[in-house]
Amino acid sequence: MQIKILQNVLKANDAKAAEVRALLQQKKICMLNLISSPGAGKTTLLEKSLPLLTKKYRVAVIEGDVETARDAERLEGYNVPIALINTSGACHLESVSIEKAFSVLDLDNLDLIFVENVGNLVCPAEFDIGEDAKVALLSTPEGDDKPSKYPLLFREAKLAILNKIDLMPYVGFNKDNFYADLAKLNASLPVIEMSCQNGTGMDKWLDWLGEMISKKIHHS
Amino acid sequence: MQIKILQNVLKANDAKAAEVRALLQQKKICMLNLISSPGAGKTTLLEKSLPLLTKKYRVAVIEGDVETARDAERLEGYNVPIALINTSGACHLESVSIEKAFSVLDLDNLDLIFVENVGNLVCPAEFDIGEDAKVALLSTPEGDDKPSKYPLLFREAKLAILNKIDLMPYVGFNKDNFYADLAKLNASLPVIEMSCQNGTGMDKWLDWLGEMISKKIHHS
Repeated sequence: MQIKILQNVLKANDAKAAEVRALLQQKKICMLNLISSPGAGKTTLLEKSLPLLTKKYRVAVIEGDVETARDAERLEGYNVPIALINTSGACHLESVSIEKAFSVLDLDNLDLIFVENVGNLVCPAEFDIGEDAKVALLSTPEGDDKPSKYPLLFREAKLAILNKIDLMPYVGFNKDNFYADLAKLNASLPVIEMSCQNGTGMDKWLDWLGEMISKKIHHS
Repeated sequence: MQIKILQNVLKANDAKAAEVRALLQQKKICMLNLISSPGAGKTTLLEKSLPLLTKKYRVAVIEGDVETARDAERLEGYNVPIALINTSGACHLESVSIEKAFSVLDLDNLDLIFVENVGNLVCPAEFDIGEDAKVALLSTPEGDDKPSKYPLLFREAKLAILNKIDLMPYVGFNKDNFYADLAKLNASLPVIEMSCQNGTGMDKWLDWLGEMISKKIHHS
């Protein structure tokens, strides 16, 4: 009974995700789904990226949070439209929430939408929200064993960001183990080593984003 | 429909949790439910605590992991019984899993059971597994804003551990904000500042554990 209902929920989510994806295709908007543990640096990455991206692209952010408007508030002042979704305890975003968020965004004037998912390395990876790519963030203090322990996200992602690379000397992160595990899960997954504190990796991240946006515009 | 089923699931979980709790009461075993984000330091805390605790108490560990036996393997050699539960993708432990784990533990020869829940700051807090206390771990690199953003765990917990206090100088963690937010959520929640690297807080943790175990034995 429980399993049947869960399948129905996933099916309904997938159907709505297909609608979201078709709409984004029509509007030539690239949408990226940022997923990580709490505190891995999703919001800080956006704070560093938005000033650079808005010179060239029309960007919006959909903020998913269990409670509070804190992340959305951190992004005020970057001059981008923000749609906040409070999940009221739920551990992930679903496609129906994205559709609701679209109602407050002007889709005729956007090139790129970041979805900052709920901080959770497990559940958000299970739900298609119509995105072009899931981007997995892992921060070095979480440990090199996390891809193997939480494999679904790293199998589903089209990009992994190894964040807080500046903390590497203090946290005993073994890069060889990390890359070996990742190769077993998803051999073609590109990885960008990043520090939002000192700017490491920001150029590669902007290049990757540029390619994603360009692909979307030309394939649409 | 979905909500009704979820309520049924929670009810079934609560009923089984009550059975687990009654059994632990009868056997005079204290059971603690360790909950945190991935990589906050649950397994390392156990690695540091077990050699000290096993001098005085009969201890077992129930390890909950989405996939792999890595955490259980890390605890081999500490000479405690370990029951590993792979959740096959599920984001939290439920009371029925604890009952299953009990089948491989000798409950007549235990004083203390640690349950290391799936690394997830959201879902595990929703499920009573029959524990005496939920222990919330937060590590400083995750940021001082996490209690407010993920409030349920910090409302439910009977102890919070602020871990990786040795990384404080590198990660911009604001202790005043952390304690002010926590006071709003759960004013009576004790907090232990800890570093498993340099031993800070270990004495307070052992004192707290000793009290919990002693209470259980004398009230049973």
